[in-house]
Amino acid sequence: MAKIVAMEVRDVRFPTSRDLDGSDAMNPDPDYSAAYVELHTDAGPDGYGLAFTIGRGNDVQAAAIRALAPHVVGRDVPEDAEALGALSRALVGDSQFRWLGPEKGVAHMAIGAIVNAAWDLAARRAGLPLWKFASRMTPEELVSLVDFRYLSDALTEQEALDILRAAEPGKAERIAKLEAEGYRAYSTSAGWLGYSDAKLVRLAEQAVADGFEMIKLKVGGNLEDDVRRMKLARETVGAEIRIAVDANQRWDVATAVSWMTALAPFDPYWIEEPTSPDDVLGHAAIAKALAPIKVATGEHVQNRVVFKQLLQANAIDVLQLDAARVGGVNENLAILLLAAKFGVPVCPHAGGVGLCELVRHLSMFDFVAVSGSDSDRSIEWVDHLHDHFTDPAVVRDGRYLAPTAPGFSARMHDATLRRFSFPDGPEWTENAQ
Amino acid sequence: MAKIVAMEVRDVRFPTSRDLDGSDAMNPDPDYSAAYVELHTDAGPDGYGLAFTIGRGNDVQAAAIRALAPHVVGRDVPEDAEALGALSRALVGDSQFRWLGPEKGVAHMAIGAIVNAAWDLAARRAGLPLWKFASRMTPEELVSLVDFRYLSDALTEQEALDILRAAEPGKAERIAKLEAEGYRAYSTSAGWLGYSDAKLVRLAEQAVADGFEMIKLKVGGNLEDDVRRMKLARETVGAEIRIAVDANQRWDVATAVSWMTALAPFDPYWIEEPTSPDDVLGHAAIAKALAPIKVATGEHVQNRVVFKQLLQANAIDVLQLDAARVGGVNENLAILLLAAKFGVPVCPHAGGVGLCELVRHLSMFDFVAVSGSDSDRSIEWVDHLHDHFTDPAVVRDGRYLAPTAPGFSARMHDATLRRFSFPDGPEWTENAQ
Repeated sequence: MAKIVAMEVRDVRFPTSRDLDGSDAMNPDPDYSAAYVELHTDAGPDGYGLAFTIGRGNDVQAAAIRALAPHVVGRDVPEDAEALGALSRALVGDSQFRWLGPEKGVAHMAIGAIVNAAWDLAARRAGLPLWKFASRMTPEELVSLVDFRYLSDALTEQEALDILRAAEPGKAERIAKLEAEGYRAYSTSAGWLGYSDAKLVRLAEQAVADGFEMIKLKVGGNLEDDVRRMKLARETVGAEIRIAVDANQRWDVATAVSWMTALAPFDPYWIEEPTSPDDVLGHAAIAKALAPIKVATGEHVQNRVVFKQLLQANAIDVLQLDAARVGGVNENLAILLLAAKFGVPVCPHAGGVGLCELVRHLSMFDFVAVSGSDSDRSIEWVDHLHDHFTDPAVVRDGRYLAPTAPGFSARMHDATLRRFSFPDGPEWTENAQ
Repeated sequence: MAKIVAMEVRDVRFPTSRDLDGSDAMNPDPDYSAAYVELHTDAGPDGYGLAFTIGRGNDVQAAAIRALAPHVVGRDVPEDAEALGALSRALVGDSQFRWLGPEKGVAHMAIGAIVNAAWDLAARRAGLPLWKFASRMTPEELVSLVDFRYLSDALTEQEALDILRAAEPGKAERIAKLEAEGYRAYSTSAGWLGYSDAKLVRLAEQAVADGFEMIKLKVGGNLEDDVRRMKLARETVGAEIRIAVDANQRWDVATAVSWMTALAPFDPYWIEEPTSPDDVLGHAAIAKALAPIKVATGEHVQNRVVFKQLLQANAIDVLQLDAARVGGVNENLAILLLAAKFGVPVCPHAGGVGLCELVRHLSMFDFVAVSGSDSDRSIEWVDHLHDHFTDPAVVRDGRYLAPTAPGFSARMHDATLRRFSFPDGPEWTENAQ
């Protein structure tokens, strides 16, 4: 049996704040970063995973991953659901480490990075892209991966099995459809808050020309600016293209309602992160007040327990899972099952570092094996930093192509790891301020 | 103006797992630990704070505190509400670091440790124990310390002012009462899950003899054991002494209800942490099903936003704030104000490392300046590790004495810091397994 013989963790940072890529009302100057983990084995391929951060504190995130090495190093290379479930349970169940969360923040993102690296490893060994590797598992195997603790008042093991069994017919057809047509994307590239009106218009026109059916604007800095930008965007793309807006947690409940009421004449499709990601009841109040404008959140939702409540409280119309915020594929499977149970579409958060690469696997797996549907679903697309990955996400005519390379696509090029290593890589030493 | 010229952070761990002190159903083998922070100044006293953890990962917690040094080093020594508010806003508002939470887990506990050390410093300079230092502030000053973001649907700035103004009359009498009589304590020392029945009975008898009016038992390991231990405890202490039970997050909603129904014949006063600390709706369902048994939680509640919802949803009857889980005194002031608004008594979580030392200040401040009441309120008391502190908590006849030394009482003896330093202190090198 091949073994994991070492775990290497790197602090990798991209100086995105220099161009205001990724700027929004809450995060004006992000340096998109990754705490990057490599699982080295004594035979066969290695495994790759990451936690995404936006700069300062990426060293803390890396330290948290390193602290979990004793659970990983010396372990047999995971090849199946049983091993991937056991690893996840060992990490989440560490009786001392869990105090740091539990199941949230730095500690939980560290678990997610390792769990995702283990899935990458398993999929590489199987010679399959992750979405196909997971889709090949039986309903019983998939259910064995999920931690149902704290979920049973909303989703039982039996209900999860029923959902997965209902998705069994038609799997092959859906795989063929993905391979032929890909999966719908939407574009955030036009809408960063730091961009000028002219750049917004140019990029919005480009997005429509590129085949996207929805674009997204950042809002929440200044109401007059937002009304002007939203009007401009609507005039640019016309009535048929959806425009989502994203407040990145800027508002209290009453402000969210009044601000969005001012934007309502321009037909926003969803309001994303209107308030604190921890505020289930706040999102519920906002959703009730703003319907039919949809409410979306998820990139900062810490775990399945909060997603469960958002669904129980009818607080979200769109669930935006994140590949690197929660405890990895295992917990995202729980989240996909919860969304399917409540009939809420999943439109993953992406962008950042590697998130587009990762979430396409999760949405395609959802379509094949969980919800069985792609209607009203799309994956965020932000067109930067993809060149740094060995298996980059590719979007054509507004659709993500189905990845074909074995694994979970988090691997970066060696040259990238050297150049953007923080603080010692040449990108940082040569451009020191 | 005196300045903070350096911040030192230490990884301090006590080998409590050797004796099963602190053992419960979720945390069977804790090594009580602190990521300990010292703010060194160029004139006058230094400031001390800590984040409490239970062993593995304490190094990650220490790294998170260190990562925030640029916000602290070089700053004027804070002396008033304005400076203490500004420091808190700078830490919580770091636009890159906040991605690691936001406002939760390792990153937020790091902020709390620093904010508390700054309050310690300010109170030392004023020559007052923290509870008196804070009680001397005006309602306007206190309100200026609070971050009302995400709170306004439950508590406005004006409502907070009204609460604080209503508590102005009688302050001097309440201070005199605390100095004469102290503040009610309850004892958890008898009830650790790893203790034998004989030890439980002996320590429960001792607690009653020592003047405590409530004891607490850990539950959630095995139902038969819990029924036997609860029966034994009730027979030991009689009908007049309250017995709280604490499940440390072990249960789903339905299990919490059925398990507590089995313990109900022995008249439990509250059930603490019946389920995930993130599950507002779960706590609400449990509270509704179990009334009049009270529901309590808080030691793992990540921030004011979750406390707000627990109160809005009538999910808790007792609010257990923690001195070292949230963003320090500033956020705990917000939490005290929320509790006062909703009329829910605050009974702080303590034990651990230094938590008894810290929370007595918060409860006494609450009595003097916020709720103005001590009825149905008490502070947890666990009698271990106090000797390591320079201003240890003292409980006599079941009551915490009012601290008189200047500061917030988190400072440990130098000999303790040397001996229990991890992994290089003699306690760890001489007893290596």
